Amino acid sequence: METRPKRRSELWFTEEQTRDMRLSLRVDATLLHAQTPYQELAVLDTPEYGRMIVLDGAIQITERDEFCYSEMMAHIPLCAHPAPGSVLIVGGGDGAVLREVLRHPCVTRAVLVDIDEQVIEASRRFLPSIASSMDDPRAEVRHTDAIEYIRNTHGEFDVAIVDSTDPVDFAAGLFEAPFYRDLRQALREDGMVIAQTESPFSDASVVTGAFDALRRVFPVARLCWGAMPTYPTGMWTYTVGSSSYDPSVPVRSCPPGTRYYTPDVHRAAFALPAFLSELIR
Amino acid sequence: METRPKRRSELWFTEEQTRDMRLSLRVDATLLHAQTPYQELAVLDTPEYGRMIVLDGAIQITERDEFCYSEMMAHIPLCAHPAPGSVLIVGGGDGAVLREVLRHPCVTRAVLVDIDEQVIEASRRFLPSIASSMDDPRAEVRHTDAIEYIRNTHGEFDVAIVDSTDPVDFAAGLFEAPFYRDLRQALREDGMVIAQTESPFSDASVVTGAFDALRRVFPVARLCWGAMPTYPTGMWTYTVGSSSYDPSVPVRSCPPGTRYYTPDVHRAAFALPAFLSELIR
Repeated sequence: METRPKRRSELWFTEEQTRDMRLSLRVDATLLHAQTPYQELAVLDTPEYGRMIVLDGAIQITERDEFCYSEMMAHIPLCAHPAPGSVLIVGGGDGAVLREVLRHPCVTRAVLVDIDEQVIEASRRFLPSIASSMDDPRAEVRHTDAIEYIRNTHGEFDVAIVDSTDPVDFAAGLFEAPFYRDLRQALREDGMVIAQTESPFSDASVVTGAFDALRRVFPVARLCWGAMPTYPTGMWTYTVGSSSYDPSVPVRSCPPGTRYYTPDVHRAAFALPAFLSELIR
Repeated sequence: METRPKRRSELWFTEEQTRDMRLSLRVDATLLHAQTPYQELAVLDTPEYGRMIVLDGAIQITERDEFCYSEMMAHIPLCAHPAPGSVLIVGGGDGAVLREVLRHPCVTRAVLVDIDEQVIEASRRFLPSIASSMDDPRAEVRHTDAIEYIRNTHGEFDVAIVDSTDPVDFAAGLFEAPFYRDLRQALREDGMVIAQTESPFSDASVVTGAFDALRRVFPVARLCWGAMPTYPTGMWTYTVGSSSYDPSVPVRSCPPGTRYYTPDVHRAAFALPAFLSELIR
């Protein structure tokens, strides 16, 4: 009699990227699965992308590809601003964008405002090499509502980085003009802001909506893009609002140790495929 | 008694992009599912990306995002070569790259060699607006083994475009130095070749292997990249081998009607993220 091979359980995480598209990653281990006051939080180990944090079913960060996103979010504004001393990060509780911000020795103060303390705790526990950026003496971590915090802040920051979740539920306000207006007031006169603004293929209305909102508030608004494998479609946009400087031109040298960002990549990120220029016309 | 809502069948196509990662697309209709002498062939309608052709379980082309790939493959070499009159396409039986090639009025002859006649027939039947490029009087379609065809061709083409499937089975030879050597002989003395060389995240060894092979055969070898949502990780590489001209510099104007390619996108595509430069060092 033939012996049937022993079978093993297969565990897969599936993100419903749109109603009609799903990305699935094999899971080696589920390290955390909890409901916070704000969202569902999971930490999973995957063979494809290493350890990852998932919020409300959407991948936020993976060990293997986060550098693509974190470096764009930090170094585009920090290299385009001539003297970024103080930086505000909205969201980003994992600490990856903060880590990139702190690579710049000219940064003397970096405030990270993430409403969900449990995301920060999960990152400290499960992604310690990333979250250790929060122990830097220049870093200041606040668990509070960023919209409130910014409303009460005036002329304090050179650069703001909006590292938000998708524009649903409590994060929806982070993509609208009133928020950007308060954000501009929180910045110094020559300040600059960058926001992650989703994929032009799966969320074109977010790209256009956020861009139009930023354009109404800042004299300069520019769109740029990059690769980001674990986000829907792998093509990700970033919108920059600026009071004075051209965001597409790096004027400061790039700190050593980057794996995605280079000064050439900075300039190239603003060369938009024709359909993307069309989208924000 | 509560009435239970009527349920509907859900049909999904799933591509096993790697052993540990899958992309799933909802399917509205299965138009064709057949075994050709060379591969499994399916034509599916999807709400996310429109109509698509699948070979051996891997998405080859979708109506909604093929322009990202087709325009890079055609316009990078055709705009970097000063006078591309004759063009060879290896694979590409759907006709999309051919359509882009024929946008250039200077092209007087475009030969498409795809081993699988049934792919060409499926494209003519189900993607007629794309496949109609094959009816252009300048186009010549051959259902034959490209490796054989190229071995018997000498000094005929200005540009060759290797629009192959993944490097498995009968297509594996299309990523190796002996093939590139024959290809160089099939080109005129100042010829140029571009090949799709997969994703640096999911198939880094293909990027390095194909690049090294091309570098051994051509005096100039350059890597560039672009977004391609339905291919694994959404970040796609293209390797260019050139006998004379710098592939990164567009010297001819871009034909009207492109949706991805622009001269700025051409130059920007050669600005490699740091990890990608590192990969081919």
